[in-house]
Amino acid sequence: MRAHTEYLTFHTKKRRELVHLTPMLEGILARSRVDEGFMLVSAMHITAGVFVNDDESGLHSDILKWLEKLAPSGLDYEHHRTGEDNGDAHLKSMLVHHEVIVPVTAGRMDFGPWQRVFYAEFDGQRDKRVIVKVMGE
Amino acid sequence: MRAHTEYLTFHTKKRRELVHLTPMLEGILARSRVDEGFMLVSAMHITAGVFVNDDESGLHSDILKWLEKLAPSGLDYEHHRTGEDNGDAHLKSMLVHHEVIVPVTAGRMDFGPWQRVFYAEFDGQRDKRVIVKVMGE
Amino acid sequence: MRAHTEYLTFHTKKRRELVHLTPMLEGILARSRVDEGFMLVSAMHITAGVFVNDDESGLHSDILKWLEKLAPSGLDYEHHRTGEDNGDAHLKSMLVHHEVIVPVTAGRMDFGPWQRVFYAEFDGQRDKRVIVKVMGE
Repeated sequence: MRAHTEYLTFHTKKRRELVHLTPMLEGILARSRVDEGFMLVSAMHITAGVFVNDDESGLHSDILKWLEKLAPSGLDYEHHRTGEDNGDAHLKSMLVHHEVIVPVTAGRMDFGPWQRVFYAEFDGQRDKRVIVKVMGE
Repeated sequence: MRAHTEYLTFHTKKRRELVHLTPMLEGILARSRVDEGFMLVSAMHITAGVFVNDDESGLHSDILKWLEKLAPSGLDYEHHRTGEDNGDAHLKSMLVHHEVIVPVTAGRMDFGPWQRVFYAEFDGQRDKRVIVKVMGE
Repeated sequence: MRAHTEYLTFHTKKRRELVHLTPMLEGILARSRVDEGFMLVSAMHITAGVFVNDDESGLHSDILKWLEKLAPSGLDYEHHRTGEDNGDAHLKSMLVHHEVIVPVTAGRMDFGPWQRVFYAEFDGQRDKRVIVKVMGE
């Protein structure tokens, strides 16, 4: 069994932003030398997410608007009594989920034709990390 | 370590439909000869999902209505400027999540009494695939 | 490869309640003697969830209110024709998701500074189980 771990750091210009991870993940997978196994891609913060969907800018705009509708910013969240103002970012992170598992077959991410991996930042403009861990053989 | 991969193809009659996967997964697990490990069940499309819940038809109807309420079809999504009309299916896929990991213990899916796995189609009436990958020993 | 499985049982006093799992999971991980791998933490019931977020009581209150808004109790769900009254708990479970994978590096849960694991009970006041399975070496 082989395990390989790398960490990615993102510092987005906007508070909410989607970052396409697939090319970086392909590089990590190659370095892992795993042919058969699982690749975990997981945000290390509780105001960010990782998801799989289409690399289409209109859809990305739809996703961010939809998340704002279901988990609005600017509400009087109890979490804000701690001095924070990012209650919505925690809820958006829960909706999107903070991690995905990518199947690895014959040394490649075993995805359908349109599947791509994205990091979803909901409280950015500072360093945030993602762990990528490949396990297999 | 052992890895075993199979692909399932679904072609639903309706655009939105739930398909019960558990019996198929039990067959795949038996063929994998894995006793201890994880089974990943993951949609290979970005307008479908995989989830674990109860095999009860009333609940399934509730789930489809609820997803339509939270991620409605018929809205003027930006994604539709590409010529597509399935923006809602992408959002429903994100809500449901596109994959689950099933624990495997003593050669069986280690589930509670009511847990079953479902494929959730949100833009069907054509061939769509699901990957099932078992890893363990 | 090493696999280690334990089961946790919860019996919450309230119907809806969040339970902090991280200290229990650290104990299980130590007993597993796995240094590099994945830890699956998965509810064995379809009216409960497992998620990663902040251990902050105001936020926990926000999360429970938000879930009630997006998946309300007291509606006339079709599932209730079976005699059940917990349709909302099934939908809340789907929103939160029933499982997480924790990366394990150098024998520790490889989390960011604020990440903690919680069991989310949506239909409690009776025994409910969570499976924890660690796989790696």
